[in-house]
Amino acid sequence: MKKRLMEMLEARKEEMIQIRRHLHENPELSFKEEKTAQYILDFYKGKDVEVQSNVGNGYGIIVTIKGGKQGKTIGLRADFDALPIVEETGLPFKSKNEGIMHACGHDGHTAYLLVLADCLIQLKDELPGTIKIIHQHAEEEPPGGAKSIVESGILDDVDNIFGIHLLPMHPPGVIGYHSGFSMAGRSYFKLGIQGVGGHGSSPHMANDAIVAGSYFVTAIQTVISRRINPFDMGVITIGSFDGKGTFNVIKDRVELEGDIRYMNGETKEIIEREVRRIVSGVEVKFDVKCELTYTSDYPPLYNDPQVTEQVKASLEAANDPDIKQVMEYPMMSPSEDFAYYLEKIPGCFFYIGAIPKGVEKPYFNHHPKFDIDEDALIVAAKAVGYVVCGYYGWE
Amino acid sequence: MKKRLMEMLEARKEEMIQIRRHLHENPELSFKEEKTAQYILDFYKGKDVEVQSNVGNGYGIIVTIKGGKQGKTIGLRADFDALPIVEETGLPFKSKNEGIMHACGHDGHTAYLLVLADCLIQLKDELPGTIKIIHQHAEEEPPGGAKSIVESGILDDVDNIFGIHLLPMHPPGVIGYHSGFSMAGRSYFKLGIQGVGGHGSSPHMANDAIVAGSYFVTAIQTVISRRINPFDMGVITIGSFDGKGTFNVIKDRVELEGDIRYMNGETKEIIEREVRRIVSGVEVKFDVKCELTYTSDYPPLYNDPQVTEQVKASLEAANDPDIKQVMEYPMMSPSEDFAYYLEKIPGCFFYIGAIPKGVEKPYFNHHPKFDIDEDALIVAAKAVGYVVCGYYGWE
Amino acid sequence: MKKRLMEMLEARKEEMIQIRRHLHENPELSFKEEKTAQYILDFYKGKDVEVQSNVGNGYGIIVTIKGGKQGKTIGLRADFDALPIVEETGLPFKSKNEGIMHACGHDGHTAYLLVLADCLIQLKDELPGTIKIIHQHAEEEPPGGAKSIVESGILDDVDNIFGIHLLPMHPPGVIGYHSGFSMAGRSYFKLGIQGVGGHGSSPHMANDAIVAGSYFVTAIQTVISRRINPFDMGVITIGSFDGKGTFNVIKDRVELEGDIRYMNGETKEIIEREVRRIVSGVEVKFDVKCELTYTSDYPPLYNDPQVTEQVKASLEAANDPDIKQVMEYPMMSPSEDFAYYLEKIPGCFFYIGAIPKGVEKPYFNHHPKFDIDEDALIVAAKAVGYVVCGYYGWE
Amino acid sequence: MKKRLMEMLEARKEEMIQIRRHLHENPELSFKEEKTAQYILDFYKGKDVEVQSNVGNGYGIIVTIKGGKQGKTIGLRADFDALPIVEETGLPFKSKNEGIMHACGHDGHTAYLLVLADCLIQLKDELPGTIKIIHQHAEEEPPGGAKSIVESGILDDVDNIFGIHLLPMHPPGVIGYHSGFSMAGRSYFKLGIQGVGGHGSSPHMANDAIVAGSYFVTAIQTVISRRINPFDMGVITIGSFDGKGTFNVIKDRVELEGDIRYMNGETKEIIEREVRRIVSGVEVKFDVKCELTYTSDYPPLYNDPQVTEQVKASLEAANDPDIKQVMEYPMMSPSEDFAYYLEKIPGCFFYIGAIPKGVEKPYFNHHPKFDIDEDALIVAAKAVGYVVCGYYGWE
Repeated sequence: MKKRLMEMLEARKEEMIQIRRHLHENPELSFKEEKTAQYILDFYKGKDVEVQSNVGNGYGIIVTIKGGKQGKTIGLRADFDALPIVEETGLPFKSKNEGIMHACGHDGHTAYLLVLADCLIQLKDELPGTIKIIHQHAEEEPPGGAKSIVESGILDDVDNIFGIHLLPMHPPGVIGYHSGFSMAGRSYFKLGIQGVGGHGSSPHMANDAIVAGSYFVTAIQTVISRRINPFDMGVITIGSFDGKGTFNVIKDRVELEGDIRYMNGETKEIIEREVRRIVSGVEVKFDVKCELTYTSDYPPLYNDPQVTEQVKASLEAANDPDIKQVMEYPMMSPSEDFAYYLEKIPGCFFYIGAIPKGVEKPYFNHHPKFDIDEDALIVAAKAVGYVVCGYYGWE
Repeated sequence: MKKRLMEMLEARKEEMIQIRRHLHENPELSFKEEKTAQYILDFYKGKDVEVQSNVGNGYGIIVTIKGGKQGKTIGLRADFDALPIVEETGLPFKSKNEGIMHACGHDGHTAYLLVLADCLIQLKDELPGTIKIIHQHAEEEPPGGAKSIVESGILDDVDNIFGIHLLPMHPPGVIGYHSGFSMAGRSYFKLGIQGVGGHGSSPHMANDAIVAGSYFVTAIQTVISRRINPFDMGVITIGSFDGKGTFNVIKDRVELEGDIRYMNGETKEIIEREVRRIVSGVEVKFDVKCELTYTSDYPPLYNDPQVTEQVKASLEAANDPDIKQVMEYPMMSPSEDFAYYLEKIPGCFFYIGAIPKGVEKPYFNHHPKFDIDEDALIVAAKAVGYVVCGYYGWE
Repeated sequence: MKKRLMEMLEARKEEMIQIRRHLHENPELSFKEEKTAQYILDFYKGKDVEVQSNVGNGYGIIVTIKGGKQGKTIGLRADFDALPIVEETGLPFKSKNEGIMHACGHDGHTAYLLVLADCLIQLKDELPGTIKIIHQHAEEEPPGGAKSIVESGILDDVDNIFGIHLLPMHPPGVIGYHSGFSMAGRSYFKLGIQGVGGHGSSPHMANDAIVAGSYFVTAIQTVISRRINPFDMGVITIGSFDGKGTFNVIKDRVELEGDIRYMNGETKEIIEREVRRIVSGVEVKFDVKCELTYTSDYPPLYNDPQVTEQVKASLEAANDPDIKQVMEYPMMSPSEDFAYYLEKIPGCFFYIGAIPKGVEKPYFNHHPKFDIDEDALIVAAKAVGYVVCGYYGWE
Repeated sequence: MKKRLMEMLEARKEEMIQIRRHLHENPELSFKEEKTAQYILDFYKGKDVEVQSNVGNGYGIIVTIKGGKQGKTIGLRADFDALPIVEETGLPFKSKNEGIMHACGHDGHTAYLLVLADCLIQLKDELPGTIKIIHQHAEEEPPGGAKSIVESGILDDVDNIFGIHLLPMHPPGVIGYHSGFSMAGRSYFKLGIQGVGGHGSSPHMANDAIVAGSYFVTAIQTVISRRINPFDMGVITIGSFDGKGTFNVIKDRVELEGDIRYMNGETKEIIEREVRRIVSGVEVKFDVKCELTYTSDYPPLYNDPQVTEQVKASLEAANDPDIKQVMEYPMMSPSEDFAYYLEKIPGCFFYIGAIPKGVEKPYFNHHPKFDIDEDALIVAAKAVGYVVCGYYGWE
């Protein structure tokens, strides 16, 4: 069966590329992927599967492939939204939608998964279980699509879940994985500090918001340096200190924005607690009024160690010339809403190399010149295929 | 003679008001007071005095009244420029030049001095000395007009100098003075801090300019709190912290602007030295590049104690119902380029009350609704007249 | 009468010196001046005055000289306590009490006032009023003696009060005065910051008191730099940061001590309010427990402008070769408990030059080598004598 | 052979305990372990091995067990120094040397290794290689003994090296390992900040070292929060801020001491560079003189992943009731000079559980009440025995 699946995929390598190019040419922003969703729905038209559309808080699509035999249920997920970026690749199939670009590889994710799904549909009589294909909308923009799909209950029966990301860290053929906490969780805050304005020569008649804001920035450093476990990853970046004013007028208000990263829930909670504490302290210390909005979006992504071990084993056992190396990747600081699935369902999210041929310093995800080696599509399809085979014991 | 001068002034009270209203209606910005200067020159046309125009770095005018007898030379100065402010007074004679306003009383200064000068011209045969009337341009905008007039050498023979400012601290009739250092000197700086931008989750790959800027603000506090003599006045206000950015991007550059005040040269120098030191320290400490432009404009204004004593004595001896009270004022934090004259020539700059009748909380100088009681004009003319009489021994 | 008083003082110049030397040789600490007080009481024994001892919270002595005629009541005060300093002068009459020294000139104050009082007693029939001689204990150690003497009510009938201090700013013969706020008020605080100790490698398990203390020190700078009127004098010095520990152990507690100076009550209150605010802010911000004891001891010393004007006039009218110059002194940062008298009774506290002959850089008060020119004693006696004469109209 | 070795060890379980108790009763401080070394030398007396004493910078002992057959050379290390701690265990064999205590389990390390070595000596004809037993002095006190032993060249022929630590994280029977960087490296600094003293009321005449020190502490936080890779462990603790003084005297000098931890060489270098940079910045910023001594002692301990994998495999294959579990431990913040061996020789340092029976919250290493379950000795001996067997292929 494994051999058969691989042959089927191999035969449709070019189709994957064509699908990817079509999607690349027609990117849509998160929560606005109407045509993309329709394209996917059209793909499944007439196939012997259950298709649910408009799942979650957007255009999410769940395709349920019921196997001929009883068994476990797994989910395979690909996201399909694009980014508000002006494409600068110069590709023949570059974005037709000015200002929108598939700069994160989701076009490739969807392309490989459509073809893989179709192959699995064809093999489903032999399948000892159920496979739910998750075509997810809106990964790029919090709150994202994943959370709402999980909350819809549609995955309640899923035992394990898998997903991949194309990543130009290595060429196709190199597959990366990381067990346990693997990608950062993220929070965000906006802090308005309201003091009292006045003439620059009379500080005692005013209450200088720039001073309060600056002391806030110096104090916030201690959260990372003294409050979190030094073995845990944590970052607080104040990316914006909006205090532009006139040199001889005391500023009455500044607005700060902060970005927070962490690899586990404990660190997340410590940071939030301490940021709130310091904000309260600034209010007391400088007699200012602080308005804080603190939002946590995607949680840290946790790959189940046992499932990850299985994924690794399946890939290492592949003995396929397309899969040259399976290597451990370090933890990474970007965030992924796949993390929401993994909060409920043990699974594994791993990386498929995608450096374009002949390129030494590839442009990374979210860059206007981001591109992939399209060989990565067949690698992705086969890799997830091997994982499915390993999972269901298809030799 | 004193009585005669006062009678002459009294008779031309209404004229002063008309001149002031004309000037108020036709304000011109610093260094651009072409028509105002022409108006002044026209006033002196045909009078038996030497008139020098375009003195200094602008439209400065010096009118030399040579007395019939030998004696000392004094200067009397009034400034005539206006401000880039949209007038909101609703006065019938409000500014015809949209966005420009006599919001600092210079219209009144010039009005009283023209009339006083004319009276003195008529009395000049009795004058045991020389009076130089200084119609100064560009007081409001550094580097100002005073400095260049002093540097022109035209006042080299002046023994003492006098000037006044209309100030709505009291009603007309109250005259304020302060001996010694009386008005603040001012410096200004602009500081660019250049770090290295980067992704919010990877601070180690970047060099956060907001952090460097914030530590700068906290460190700069020590200049006032620990470096200057606690008996000396000193202020450093960071009026602008321009660090607006995106929450999850590490800011590569911030720009700060600062306003500095002091009452004497020693404090001025200490503050400049220490600000420069801290900027250098920030460069070393945070490995950023700092671009500092530090400019000192008007020096602290120093009223010669002896001359001030004479002014006070002349005013107290006036026994004039228009001059109800002569009182000591505290030091004040605004700056005045009259300070440049006083650096070279012992003199006194004092204040004429100007709260409009019936007003309890007057709008202060530089406010779009700033206004004066026009009675202050005759008080100003008489006050300076009494000082001249006292100086030359006119009983 | 004035002439007679001066002749009497002149005749007892040597006696003053001997009294001073006796006191210098036998110094006693604040609140422990038993023998000094006895010496003073012995001096008045048999004289026709009312003497009250143990006034206030120590060995205070009030000698009431009732004049032969009705009139106003004035107080003349000299303090008589010494300091815990090991004398290093090498004088033949140096301290016999090891570790205690009259290093602040109180010996001289008492010496001149005893003799002056005696002369006034002899002239009292001509005196149109009452003079209360105040021999005050414990000026050097808060809460001081003055406050308790005032509170005892014994001075309730005093109309005006005078005092002097020997000061080696100028030679004897130069008398300094300052009108209005003249000497600093003082507060003191002790701050314990209690965190949680721990191993240096695990900051998240502890709560670092050194970090909290350091941020406190940086924040406290803003009180002086941004909260008080920049024209007002204010100082906060953290003189002690007791955080000695072991390099690899997180410190659980630090103790800070601070010294605060100001020249008026408003500044005093602002500083106290803001220090308390920042302490509260540190508690909130760093989740530590702060124990603050904040004590205000001597208030700013305020010389009544009118009384000071009279003092100046009396001294300038003296026409005495011993009084060479009467000059305005700047405000000074030391504190004096004479300030307590002046809170209730308009008066003047002024300075008598005391630089020893032939000395260029004199040692100042509180230095182990502090010394005075003993000619200052007759100057002090005469100066206060002239003030008394002026006050009561003795020509 | 494996079975034989284990039986031999089992038979000498009690002997190990006796040796450990003897050592526990007679602890000696680092670099002063004269009697301990003699005890060890006596143990080997008459045995057929080469013994080298006084190796490195102290009482180090190397025992070379040459096998009957050719093969690889391994090192087995146990340390034998004690700590300057007053023992509070109340054990019958508690320290006879008041103030010195085996509070880190080195007594147990030496006990098990002596017996294991003796067994290996007896089996050496079958040994296909050479085993160097390293009895190391002075682990507790930098620079430690390991570095000098490595530098002596005596281990130049060693292919792999192994060591263990008794650790009351689990009961005996649980063995912990961590691959790659496992224990923290450590640096230490002492910073003297020299300002200028002065009176508390005159900050401008002085240069406040407490202020400079406090700003240093706030700035140093940014090294951890902004400079190191957030995925890397790093700690800077200022454990001592020695600034005790008098509240009204400006402190001229403070002395700070800092403890630094990291898990890899890059972090070590970044921290040192940045601390030096901030110290230089403080010098510039506050015009103080800084004296910095910065010492790096033990490097991060790096377990070779391949060797660690072998250790894990040997232990998991043991099938011995004494070895109940082999588990991955997290990285740990303490430091170990075994790291020096591992810088040169691939090897593995792992942990033997040692919680005393019936204890729930054990006292940790370096506590005056630290104790171990003596069953850990046989576990240690067997565990290292299994590693040796695995290494040499003894079945």
